[in-house]
Amino acid sequence: MTYCLGMRLDDGLVMIADSRTNAGVDNVSSYRKLHCLADEPERQIYVATSGNLSVTQTVISLLQEGLPPGDEVGLVTRTLGQATSMFRAAQLVGEALQVANKTIGDALESLNIPAGASMLLGGRIGGEPPKLYLIYEAGNFIECHDDVPFVQIGETKYGRPILDRALRRSTPIPQAVKIAFLSFDSSMRSNIAVARPLDLMIMRSNSHVPLLTRRIEADDMYFNDLSRRWSALLSEATGSIPDPDFLAEQSGVDE
Amino acid sequence: MTYCLGMRLDDGLVMIADSRTNAGVDNVSSYRKLHCLADEPERQIYVATSGNLSVTQTVISLLQEGLPPGDEVGLVTRTLGQATSMFRAAQLVGEALQVANKTIGDALESLNIPAGASMLLGGRIGGEPPKLYLIYEAGNFIECHDDVPFVQIGETKYGRPILDRALRRSTPIPQAVKIAFLSFDSSMRSNIAVARPLDLMIMRSNSHVPLLTRRIEADDMYFNDLSRRWSALLSEATGSIPDPDFLAEQSGVDE
Repeated sequence: MTYCLGMRLDDGLVMIADSRTNAGVDNVSSYRKLHCLADEPERQIYVATSGNLSVTQTVISLLQEGLPPGDEVGLVTRTLGQATSMFRAAQLVGEALQVANKTIGDALESLNIPAGASMLLGGRIGGEPPKLYLIYEAGNFIECHDDVPFVQIGETKYGRPILDRALRRSTPIPQAVKIAFLSFDSSMRSNIAVARPLDLMIMRSNSHVPLLTRRIEADDMYFNDLSRRWSALLSEATGSIPDPDFLAEQSGVDE
Repeated sequence: MTYCLGMRLDDGLVMIADSRTNAGVDNVSSYRKLHCLADEPERQIYVATSGNLSVTQTVISLLQEGLPPGDEVGLVTRTLGQATSMFRAAQLVGEALQVANKTIGDALESLNIPAGASMLLGGRIGGEPPKLYLIYEAGNFIECHDDVPFVQIGETKYGRPILDRALRRSTPIPQAVKIAFLSFDSSMRSNIAVARPLDLMIMRSNSHVPLLTRRIEADDMYFNDLSRRWSALLSEATGSIPDPDFLAEQSGVDE
């Protein structure tokens, strides 16, 4: 399993991926799932991956080395470096996913090995604001828009309630990163197939602020402190909500 | 979908089930999923059901009308009224599930209609303390024990983080009911296939306290207030956790 989260906020883009991979519980390892595919002043592109590792690594390599030229005259291969917009970049990532699925995916399925893979694509090209896409197994994709300012792939459910309640398009980046960490903390507590290190990328809407990447290690003190504080705050919070009245009536009987 | 939760605590047993059923999003209805199968001074048995409604209703009817006599001499049918312990009751429920699966389940599967069903069984027989079981599709079952004082069936993931963090064996009943409501509130926010009314049953370890059942309707004021308070408390709580230091450094650039 895997958990990757992307947020598209007024202030910018946040992408986080865990790094646990496993083939059964007796074969657990750690691989980076957040990849930088372009890092130039006018082109910054990141991809987070979920699914069969051989499929996702193939997609990343296809994107780095270039896809077959297709119908475009004069091109030897097509790469993300040529994409003129994030929409075109998403099309290319979707196509790479289709190519990988057609070659490795079909072979895996014939052995009854799950081959599905999905991706988050985030970045900016030229002067456009940062954009965020969720690319499905078939290579089709959706863009993250205002109503739900986040997209998830992998083990999405444990970490979703905090996002549904606390995250808004207008949430400032530091607050959003805390909410994202809490979403990951919930997922890691409930599913051992999601684990640190986490890889984090923050791309501000203000393109003059440098892009920030960071690895959150398994012993990261800030993350550990956040997790402890959150548990304590939840206990206080449940304590501060009044008891149901139908139980107040009954407690007299109990004493 | 469905969400049912059972808690086995020092102070007693709590069982809650939602009531939404659906065959596709265009065929949504409401059916009770928490059933009382025995309510006598020395025998109180409740079952919560998840899965194909025709299968779970058949199981409940089989348990009410009695299963075929099997090897026991002199019995016409076997019912929960004859079970000498909650373990024997769980065996009978498991057997009823196997019978329903063999008849309806196989026919449904042949039409590619999912037929799986699972159950929570809670109650007390004679002087024994309340017990809680999770009964799987195949009729096998596990008993809820101290390390993880709850069991879930149906849409279990959205509502689990709050249980993992906040619920202990020693949690008092009113606090546990609040945590359970928050678990349901999270599930209902993230999955429209889980919805009120909720049915609640509380069986105290102290057998002199009367058993309490209650239906939480879609407009229940206490539940609505709890949900609103919880959202506000979560916002306060995320605000009270310090921002990550690596963002404090960057925020200077942003301003």
